Amino acid sequence: MGKRQSQRPRQSGARNLGKATSMSNTVARVYRGKWVDLTHQAHVAVVDKNGKLLYSLGDPERFTFVRSSAKPFQALVACESGAVEGYGLNDEALALLCASHNGEALHVKNVVEILEKAGLGEAALQCGTHPSLAPAVAKTQPSVLTNAYSNCSGKHTGMLITTQWLGEDVTTYLEPSHPHQERILEVLSELSDTPKEAIGLATDGCGVPVHSLPLRSFALATAHMADPSALEPKRAAYLRRIAGAMMAHPFMVAGSGRVCTRLMEEAKGEAFVKLGADGYYMAGVPSKGWGITCKVEDGNVAICEGLIIHVLHQLGVLSQEGFDALEGFHSPKRTNHRGEVVGRVAYDVVLREHP
Amino acid sequence: MGKRQSQRPRQSGARNLGKATSMSNTVARVYRGKWVDLTHQAHVAVVDKNGKLLYSLGDPERFTFVRSSAKPFQALVACESGAVEGYGLNDEALALLCASHNGEALHVKNVVEILEKAGLGEAALQCGTHPSLAPAVAKTQPSVLTNAYSNCSGKHTGMLITTQWLGEDVTTYLEPSHPHQERILEVLSELSDTPKEAIGLATDGCGVPVHSLPLRSFALATAHMADPSALEPKRAAYLRRIAGAMMAHPFMVAGSGRVCTRLMEEAKGEAFVKLGADGYYMAGVPSKGWGITCKVEDGNVAICEGLIIHVLHQLGVLSQEGFDALEGFHSPKRTNHRGEVVGRVAYDVVLREHP
Repeated sequence: MGKRQSQRPRQSGARNLGKATSMSNTVARVYRGKWVDLTHQAHVAVVDKNGKLLYSLGDPERFTFVRSSAKPFQALVACESGAVEGYGLNDEALALLCASHNGEALHVKNVVEILEKAGLGEAALQCGTHPSLAPAVAKTQPSVLTNAYSNCSGKHTGMLITTQWLGEDVTTYLEPSHPHQERILEVLSELSDTPKEAIGLATDGCGVPVHSLPLRSFALATAHMADPSALEPKRAAYLRRIAGAMMAHPFMVAGSGRVCTRLMEEAKGEAFVKLGADGYYMAGVPSKGWGITCKVEDGNVAICEGLIIHVLHQLGVLSQEGFDALEGFHSPKRTNHRGEVVGRVAYDVVLREHP
Repeated sequence: MGKRQSQRPRQSGARNLGKATSMSNTVARVYRGKWVDLTHQAHVAVVDKNGKLLYSLGDPERFTFVRSSAKPFQALVACESGAVEGYGLNDEALALLCASHNGEALHVKNVVEILEKAGLGEAALQCGTHPSLAPAVAKTQPSVLTNAYSNCSGKHTGMLITTQWLGEDVTTYLEPSHPHQERILEVLSELSDTPKEAIGLATDGCGVPVHSLPLRSFALATAHMADPSALEPKRAAYLRRIAGAMMAHPFMVAGSGRVCTRLMEEAKGEAFVKLGADGYYMAGVPSKGWGITCKVEDGNVAICEGLIIHVLHQLGVLSQEGFDALEGFHSPKRTNHRGEVVGRVAYDVVLREHP
């Protein structure tokens, strides 16, 4: 990768392999009536593009899978291969390569069109499929869903068009040994300043390799996307284009009623954000050059969605007006089968500042 | 309530209102590949019918909602009112009064038949409705579901027939001020040795009052159901009948593929068990006179289901053969949208013995 101003060494001993930490990191309490019934713990890391830890909560070294939060970096590999420009993808299509989308008509149509540009069909997708992540959308979907409906079909499309562009085997693109997966690992290693051998590898929901690394390290990669000025100019330009495409086309990144979409709409160009499965979130703040990562210890997705909104609001990235507009996500009421309000979720997010 | 051999005083200061405890109580780690990605914390209390704490994990005083684990005690109120005998309910019907059932045909048919015995129709049920708790069953249900399909319809039926039998207003049976709800609070207070005013009240998923009390206190109530010999003979007989009905008719308590049903089948009369929403479980062991309660701090239901199986196995209540037969619940593999195994759940349940 290009020059970076400073990089602290990471020690593998700093990994938290799931042991409880002594720090209090309860970020959310779920009330039923006036009583706390459930609690959720989390970890947060906020770093600048030099790798300096600015704020944290819980254990910023928590070693955990970034899941779909890696998609914007997987899109970078598609850009650097030449495929994105070679096949003439616009920014809307590029945002879709970064998406965990709802499988709405516009998402599916675009996936098919991108594949067509590369001379490929839907059958090339090996992501498997599932009903939409948005229950309201799921009710409107066809009874038989093709792989293009998978929330990961944009990412797989990026992998396929890259493999096709480079003349590699398009039938084995999701194997860990495929050159494309090697390239993704290389990019994540470079941008997170983490040796490849220190990145944990496993298999994602859609069959491709997923990557586990300290929250703080992936926050550094995200900071480089937020402000790539320290990087080699071509890579920097691609990172700026990806962040810009996500912020300009938030619907393509998720869809109707989804937090990634609504949060980027309300952040008004101040942040790009990307959910990862099982309670992960990443956010980049271009104006400050910050990268932010969050993980809910028990994997609760809705709690992590509320958490990232609180963090961005506390850091002054999301305005009070934007925060208020997202109330249903960060301060949800709990209702029962009769539609009565029976409880609520209360966040208590206390970031430590590291001077 | 009847005589009890010994009861320790409870102090309201012992309540844990959701603060993290200093004790390590991580009971389950979710692996993706070879890496721990998620952890879950829990609390367990095992007490005898004298209220003595025999074993614990985490904070046995955790103050939390028992939710549907209260149903067997709500059925006791129906028995004590005379309604269960008066309307000639058999043990299968009594087990259904204790159920969080799947809304399978047999459950719905029995609910309707019990209501008919009391001269009531399905329209009297005010529980609201929802698709089956078992996804495989949900796919086979009618597109329009009546309230009899609610997992709580058996409990509501017990409330309705009691109210009808006693000549009370059947249209307001779920109000906290209704005499029937007062009777339930009274019974829980007596059997758990907890003052009524120390029991937290809120609203359940189905609209009726729910009760929050220390795990240890509700374990005592469960111990009295497991061995009611210290209680007044009529109450003792009803408690024995309820525990026996649940163990003899485990399908009625939950349904196809559900843990309550399968666990009682494998326990072969050694335990009655009942799930509560948001990560609660109760179990009674008649041969030992033990009551057991568990709560997963983050409310994860599947983790709590595995936890109660591990606890019963460790305590020698569930045989090795029974434990092995339930492997899919207590040692599940995690699969992805492509059906590949990508991870697993590993339990580490260390009960403290209290000599």
